[in-house]
Parts: sequence; C-alpha cells; structure tokens
Amino acid sequence: MTNSPVPVHLTDKLSQFSDLWSQKKIADLNDYEVKLAKLHGEFVWHTHDDTDELIMVISGRLTLQLRAGDVVLGPGELVVVPRGVEHCPVAEEETAILLFEPAGTLNTGDAGGPRSKAPESL
Amino acid sequence: MTNSPVPVHLTDKLSQFSDLWSQKKIADLNDYEVKLAKLHGEFVWHTHDDTDELIMVISGRLTLQLRAGDVVLGPGELVVVPRGVEHCPVAEEETAILLFEPAGTLNTGDAGGPRSKAPESL
Repeated sequence: MTNSPVPVHLTDKLSQFSDLWSQKKIADLNDYEVKLAKLHGEFVWHTHDDTDELIMVISGRLTLQLRAGDVVLGPGELVVVPRGVEHCPVAEEETAILLFEPAGTLNTGDAGGPRSKAPESL
Repeated sequence: MTNSPVPVHLTDKLSQFSDLWSQKKIADLNDYEVKLAKLHGEFVWHTHDDTDELIMVISGRLTLQLRAGDVVLGPGELVVVPRGVEHCPVAEEETAILLFEPAGTLNTGDAGGPRSKAPESL
C-alpha cells in the first residue's frame, strides 16, 4: 500500500501498438479490466450473455450494428451494450476504443472463431 | 432486448451540470456505475476499503494526493486507486473527471462528513 498508482496516458498507450481487433489491457479494477483496441473494417456479430460491455470511442468513428438499429459513436462518446444484445462493430476509418468489462470477457463473446483472443497486457 | 442502447456524449453530459464535488451517474454496467464530476479546490482525505476506483481526467488537471506522493493527471489520463489507499484529490483549475466503480461507492469513502453524498443520475 506504499506505492503510488501509476497514471495511464491513453494516447501514449495507443502509440504502442498497431494491430487491429486485438484488445490490450491497460488497467485492472477489482475483477474488471480496462482495455484499448484499434478497429478498422467490420468485426463479427456476437453476444456477451453474462455481462454488459462499455465501449468508449477515443478517436475515429464507430458504428455499432445492432439488430434494433445502428448506434454511431464519435470521440468522447460511450455506450453500454447490455448483456444478451447481439452486436457487430464496424469502423470505416481506423478507430481507437476503450473497453470496460469483467476480466475474462472475450472479444467475440459467444461467436468464437478465428478472431477470438484474450487481451494482452500493455 | 429490442431497444438499442443510447450513446452518452461526455461533453454534452458535462454541460448539464455545474455543481462541484457532486457525482452524476451517466451509465450502469452490471453492478458498476460510470459517473462524471466537476472538481475545483481540495477534497477530503479518504479511503475506499472495499473497492478500487478508476479516475479519468476529461478536462483540466487533477492532482491526486497520496501518502506515497502526488500523481498528476491531465486530459486522457486515468489512474486506478487501489482499495485501501488513502487519497485526496486537488484541482487548481476546474477539472472534469469520469469515475468507474461499484454502485453504492460513496465519494468520501470512509471519511463521511458534509461532502458525502450519493450520486445523482443525469
């Protein structure tokens, strides 16, 4: 309890990777994780059955396709995708996002597939 | 499950209040809350014994006083204050922050006092 917590600068962290659709963990909070990712193109339709998921856009523009209609997010906008709601992110330009969700949440949720991977730590 | 989640624009939400040291809830995620607050001046020393606390600066500049030394955060920087670590925020200019922590977490932690209050919803 004697060490000061270390600040995390989002832009600095974003400069440390360039791979797309690959979540990078930047902080732990209890049993939750704060993660960054860079997106470009369309992901896969998926659902997280056991958890809500917070997505905040840092730069670029994210269209979150949902069966009930699209939600478009720019920098400084966030949305919470409720558990059980199928969604598919699309980014027409390279887009950086921050994610907040329980540790162990996979990027592809129930969908699995070749793009499914656990986050790396930055 | 048929309604699309509603995006939250941080700057819009910040324009909707001006009171200081008063947390405003802008989203729920499982049993956690995303909150905004505006700070100016010095708060009270306090500890959250049961939870870590995420603080991200949106605008301004926050000095987080800690017994082990100060941590200074500017826009786009975040820090997780571990549970049990005593801290006291100071903002020499008006500063807007985003908080992420379990629902029910009080702003003053264990310290109580006149500045202790539950978040309002925006």
